[in-house]
Amino acid sequence: MKMVKNHAGRLVPETVNGKPQIPFMGVGGYKPGYRKAKPPVKSCADYPADGNKLVPDLKTALINAGIKDGMVISTHHHLRNGDALTNYMFDVIKELGVKDIVWFPSASFPCHNYLIKYLEDGTIHHIEGSMNGPLGEYTSYGKMKGQGVLRSHGGRYQAIQDGDIHIDIAVIAAPTADPFGNANGETGKSACGLIGFALGDSEYADNVIVVTDNLVPFPCVPWQIQGQNVDYVVQIDSLGDATKIVSGTTEITKSPDRLLIAEYVAKFIEASGIMKDGFSFQAGAGGTALAFVYFLKERMKAKGVKARFVRGGSTKYLVELLEEGLTDYILDGQTFDLEGVRSMHQNKNHINTTPFTSYNYHGKGNFASIIDTAVLGATEVDLNFNANVVTHSDGLLLHGIGGWQNCLFAKCSILAIPSFRDRIPVIVDEVTTICAPGEMVDVIVTERGIAINPRRQDLLDAVKDSGLPIRPLADIKAEVDAIVGGQPKKPQLDREQVVAVVKWVDGTLLDSVYRVVSQ
Amino acid sequence: MKMVKNHAGRLVPETVNGKPQIPFMGVGGYKPGYRKAKPPVKSCADYPADGNKLVPDLKTALINAGIKDGMVISTHHHLRNGDALTNYMFDVIKELGVKDIVWFPSASFPCHNYLIKYLEDGTIHHIEGSMNGPLGEYTSYGKMKGQGVLRSHGGRYQAIQDGDIHIDIAVIAAPTADPFGNANGETGKSACGLIGFALGDSEYADNVIVVTDNLVPFPCVPWQIQGQNVDYVVQIDSLGDATKIVSGTTEITKSPDRLLIAEYVAKFIEASGIMKDGFSFQAGAGGTALAFVYFLKERMKAKGVKARFVRGGSTKYLVELLEEGLTDYILDGQTFDLEGVRSMHQNKNHINTTPFTSYNYHGKGNFASIIDTAVLGATEVDLNFNANVVTHSDGLLLHGIGGWQNCLFAKCSILAIPSFRDRIPVIVDEVTTICAPGEMVDVIVTERGIAINPRRQDLLDAVKDSGLPIRPLADIKAEVDAIVGGQPKKPQLDREQVVAVVKWVDGTLLDSVYRVVSQ
Repeated sequence: MKMVKNHAGRLVPETVNGKPQIPFMGVGGYKPGYRKAKPPVKSCADYPADGNKLVPDLKTALINAGIKDGMVISTHHHLRNGDALTNYMFDVIKELGVKDIVWFPSASFPCHNYLIKYLEDGTIHHIEGSMNGPLGEYTSYGKMKGQGVLRSHGGRYQAIQDGDIHIDIAVIAAPTADPFGNANGETGKSACGLIGFALGDSEYADNVIVVTDNLVPFPCVPWQIQGQNVDYVVQIDSLGDATKIVSGTTEITKSPDRLLIAEYVAKFIEASGIMKDGFSFQAGAGGTALAFVYFLKERMKAKGVKARFVRGGSTKYLVELLEEGLTDYILDGQTFDLEGVRSMHQNKNHINTTPFTSYNYHGKGNFASIIDTAVLGATEVDLNFNANVVTHSDGLLLHGIGGWQNCLFAKCSILAIPSFRDRIPVIVDEVTTICAPGEMVDVIVTERGIAINPRRQDLLDAVKDSGLPIRPLADIKAEVDAIVGGQPKKPQLDREQVVAVVKWVDGTLLDSVYRVVSQ
Repeated sequence: MKMVKNHAGRLVPETVNGKPQIPFMGVGGYKPGYRKAKPPVKSCADYPADGNKLVPDLKTALINAGIKDGMVISTHHHLRNGDALTNYMFDVIKELGVKDIVWFPSASFPCHNYLIKYLEDGTIHHIEGSMNGPLGEYTSYGKMKGQGVLRSHGGRYQAIQDGDIHIDIAVIAAPTADPFGNANGETGKSACGLIGFALGDSEYADNVIVVTDNLVPFPCVPWQIQGQNVDYVVQIDSLGDATKIVSGTTEITKSPDRLLIAEYVAKFIEASGIMKDGFSFQAGAGGTALAFVYFLKERMKAKGVKARFVRGGSTKYLVELLEEGLTDYILDGQTFDLEGVRSMHQNKNHINTTPFTSYNYHGKGNFASIIDTAVLGATEVDLNFNANVVTHSDGLLLHGIGGWQNCLFAKCSILAIPSFRDRIPVIVDEVTTICAPGEMVDVIVTERGIAINPRRQDLLDAVKDSGLPIRPLADIKAEVDAIVGGQPKKPQLDREQVVAVVKWVDGTLLDSVYRVVSQ
């Protein structure tokens, strides 16, 4: 495999799964000079005039869609760890004797560990998407036939739109749908809030199959997925386990260290002047992020500050902000708990968004860069503020990118991370995998202090008299190294075998993930 | 000009404005074997990171968009006869000295008669879209430089999507917008309800300019037009005359004949069994259509029947159906009065639609064919049920097609027309212009009786004992001809000069409109 050094100083392969690649050229460095993918023009003459696209079962739909060896089949992840459809779909594909499918999910969850048997038996060739936990470990040890391709949520839309990947068949789990194919995630026993991650799939795939366990008469509104893009509709008994599709509730961390980090983040956002009337922020659903929202809310109330909008993954904590009048809008990409689902269905100011609106870097702007601040995690950071979110220091690929790379475009990006985990330092000499060039990371908040990227003199100035523990990142690193006895042992990696690649938001190759020989 | 005879037996030119054409091949006869138009891929790197796309004025926006001679510039018609923006835009284009613009409106109104001077002086080369009243008359007399191209609302989306027409610059009037370009028609002093007719323009144009007189902080929701498709935003004082953008109210006809027609339509829909629980219908905003809704509503209440959905152009009469629980939804393409605007903004079951969802024939189905019945007008019909909606018997082109061709795909299409107008029979030997092949027209309702297309034996059977005045169309024609003294005199047309063409919903040429020499 021929490797080239990219703008981040990392070696990346010239081809991935046989396709030529473009190495990372710096943030904003790559200029697309081409046109969007162009799906085939269809005719109403070839679809039922009464709008009824129901077929008896998924097998029929897949056969009608012309399924064959080597096709790219996509699914979305809004059903999260409750998703039963994807596994069932591969059972059907196996039954049909079809091989070498490229699975193109918007994310994968532990429930999809079931699919390892189909990676083993050749039903699935490789996963073009995030691989968490066991699927990632499987890949890390070089067991997957093809190479994994990790993209951000925005990068996935970009890849579809730009024709970097061509979806043959999109299978869209729809908690509510009508026979025409209009679909949403708001209601039904498998309600997950929204299904916007399937938007690009519905727009660009050659064949689109909507699968629902809650069929309603036309029209299904809102039509988060539009029936005009759908070929077949399948009704099944159950899309999955509702209790795992959304949490009953999401809970704030109880860890004193994490609570301290969250409080530091909230204080930093206030002290730096970001928290002011009309501001905006994004926070995920991790325990630390939830705690940050809790602390920031107290500060907003104390100061009488109202946000213009907040971005989810929504949880009950964001819903409270909306319902208590502390934000005009929630702009939401996925709902993480029942309160999020309820609010999106009931509150017209709880707006569903898509990777196109929020994150697509190859558009005329997107929401991510308009946001004042985004609070994220990381597995590793280095002293140049380069950050990793997919591998651990043992070399194992255990996480997807999600919206992480996209959110870094916020006006102030904050990584809220413990300084070490299980006695392994998080601040390292060199990150195992670069997922973000250092210029994209503005602030690193740990329980031992807050480090501001020297590029952001404006932030350094803004908080210099705040009393917050602002420290050089190297100081925090030295302190942690002393406590845990130095940097972690480097894993033994086979640098001749790239098991996966990490794409930047523009589709270029940012880094390679190598086969783990031993840890 | 070389002419060919099409499937409807009409002569159509081989080229229009220099572009090769496909003659009409029968309903459903033409199969597109190509792919959609592919707009250029953009990069966020080239757009302001803070999302602020405001430029000082429309002139700057047009210059930034690279305006030059011969470009195609599009506008939408949601501001109806109150639109001041389009006229102002052409003033700016004139000031810039740019010539030979192809104006591609979704419809034109009497206020656009102002533009005749720009057709005269060469600023506008031709109008690719509907031409009502004086603009149509101007074209009819052969005064326009290029040829007019008349498309249905769905055909316009199809033409954009399929690349039949490439929009260089779309200028989108937005009653509310934010600096990122998110826009809607729901609120603001120029509120018009929705601006969905500009959807295709925003998706496929090389340059998209949003012009608003009500700028709000990001995010403007709902985003009927998505900022991710927008290049520039311009704030101006006023988009136009609010009283002409929407009527204060829309009124039912007072003509006894028209009331009788409307009552016949309602009775027919009941007697034929179409009016049953869960049914659907579409009606426009003409006085007869409104009266039909009034009569049908009384019948629905009497029978305890509820519709699943009704399609607008919405008016207070449709809003009443929704608010009184007589329909689950309004699926609305444009709001015609203040009640429609209010309802769309307030009622989550008053849904905005677009030509893509409703009418695009080159999609995987559309809403038009799902509807049980649609009630429409016509200028002429012949004994084969062929119908005309654009020219009068004097040969003058005085109306656009609007959604008329698209709505004919309803399960039962009804033309509700007077048997004569100004002593000119509406049932003619041969329609001046074919806009609908006879197979698309199921029922013709006049004040003298109801004629059912012999192809619809099912409808003939359904109403045979209804007591309704079901008559052969030829009988009604003979009666009318006797009253008014026979068929109208044929206009003198120059068949060597095609001044405009009528496209079918699939982009093929259905008929030609010829220069009127004398009437």
